[in-house]
Amino acid sequence: MRKIAFQGESGAFSEEAALKLLGSVELLPCVSFDSMFEAVKSGECDGCIAPIENSLAGSVHANYDLLLQHDFYIIGEIFLRIVHNLIALPGVSFEQVRKVYSHPVALAQCRKFCREFRHLEQVSEYDTAGSVKMLRDQGLRDGAAIASIRAATVYGASVLRTEIEDNKENYTRFLLLSRDAKPQPSANKTSIVFSTRNEPGMLFRCLAAFALRDIDLTKLESRPLHGKPWEYFFYVDFIGNVEDPNCKNALRHLEEMTTFLRILGSYPSAETR
Amino acid sequence: MRKIAFQGESGAFSEEAALKLLGSVELLPCVSFDSMFEAVKSGECDGCIAPIENSLAGSVHANYDLLLQHDFYIIGEIFLRIVHNLIALPGVSFEQVRKVYSHPVALAQCRKFCREFRHLEQVSEYDTAGSVKMLRDQGLRDGAAIASIRAATVYGASVLRTEIEDNKENYTRFLLLSRDAKPQPSANKTSIVFSTRNEPGMLFRCLAAFALRDIDLTKLESRPLHGKPWEYFFYVDFIGNVEDPNCKNALRHLEEMTTFLRILGSYPSAETR
Repeated sequence: MRKIAFQGESGAFSEEAALKLLGSVELLPCVSFDSMFEAVKSGECDGCIAPIENSLAGSVHANYDLLLQHDFYIIGEIFLRIVHNLIALPGVSFEQVRKVYSHPVALAQCRKFCREFRHLEQVSEYDTAGSVKMLRDQGLRDGAAIASIRAATVYGASVLRTEIEDNKENYTRFLLLSRDAKPQPSANKTSIVFSTRNEPGMLFRCLAAFALRDIDLTKLESRPLHGKPWEYFFYVDFIGNVEDPNCKNALRHLEEMTTFLRILGSYPSAETR
Repeated sequence: MRKIAFQGESGAFSEEAALKLLGSVELLPCVSFDSMFEAVKSGECDGCIAPIENSLAGSVHANYDLLLQHDFYIIGEIFLRIVHNLIALPGVSFEQVRKVYSHPVALAQCRKFCREFRHLEQVSEYDTAGSVKMLRDQGLRDGAAIASIRAATVYGASVLRTEIEDNKENYTRFLLLSRDAKPQPSANKTSIVFSTRNEPGMLFRCLAAFALRDIDLTKLESRPLHGKPWEYFFYVDFIGNVEDPNCKNALRHLEEMTTFLRILGSYPSAETR
């Protein structure tokens, strides 16, 4: 991979995930998930790194929907522990801070900290690292941002408090997407999406294709099927390489019951890296 | 029900849903879902009306999580068709409008309209009806809001364009929650939430409790189990009264496989009203 798009400013958790997964690689910051997918579609980037689920906040539905709208391939995944830090400009002390800037999800994940220091006004921003950048660009000395250590380094800011998140079991799963399919001989995890006829027991019968073959599902997510209220696309992750005979049989069995089935990718699971 | 809390300003879709479901009832507008649940917990209101899913945008996860955090009962549901309108102060013509204010989900659901009139600047607000209120309170004559017809009526504003949403199959499902359990003899739908041991095939075996008894599931939603990354609470809606022997057997069977099981409510389904 030559160049990878990510959502957020330099110093974002997504950027950290890309570097951890790929080592050194050229990176393109994007303002939104939409523009990140567009950067891959247009050929400006070869792939992108998409947060798909956080262990506390849940699935990132915008990216599930974008996966379906684009013909990209999942070629890898990585889990990143999310550690939130209070970051200010160099020389600013904790006592000087009056406002705390960050993404609403990050603010919500530091609720205990914000309750302890009630005099701090919380201000929602579009991005965690972007909040640190804003402190620097505007020279704000009465504010601090909640972001990663990496964001502090990138913008030459100081870390006033570390690990201020409520729950330490805070991980985000990122998918590495590529415009071109790549052979993945070490793949041991597969992601698919399907829809079924709307009949009683259909989901149960679809899951039977896996359960009857002892294939372990790691995730099941449903998203609305637009134009058919209360019908769904089901996104399933399972353990196995799409080329394994057992998995091939399961997918052939599943196909008998689906009105739509797409393999999103087969890739090495993060646990085995 | 004496007094019902809803999220949003007067004129919100939630308020419309409450009136459609309950006829005339006293209503309390709340700034957030959290404060809406608090108004019921504190006894200020007897119940609240919570949007739980939109047929295009998907589940309202904040409310799924709040359902679990509070011991309230689902005693009813209603579907409301969401029609978006362009609304301005009286006497303002379409040609005068330069900015369009609304909730980000409403703006996203009127993408074709916004693309057709590219000169209109989109501005995100916290609420649809609240955007109309803002036009009135600030006397803005170069702006318009995207909101319900009801919001136009409530704030004495004019409808410039109607049905500007991209997709007409736009419905929101609302749940009516009560602090006190109420006998629901006409109940024919039940909502539950459960978690299981993290073993291969567990979800399949849980769904078997229903499939083996021909009980139709209408919704399956998963939410993170905090503190146990990549384990889930499963929310299931099924057709049937919780007191039916068949449903009782299914729940007893399900209980054998769950580490947690709670019945959120058994109520008359919206389809049969």
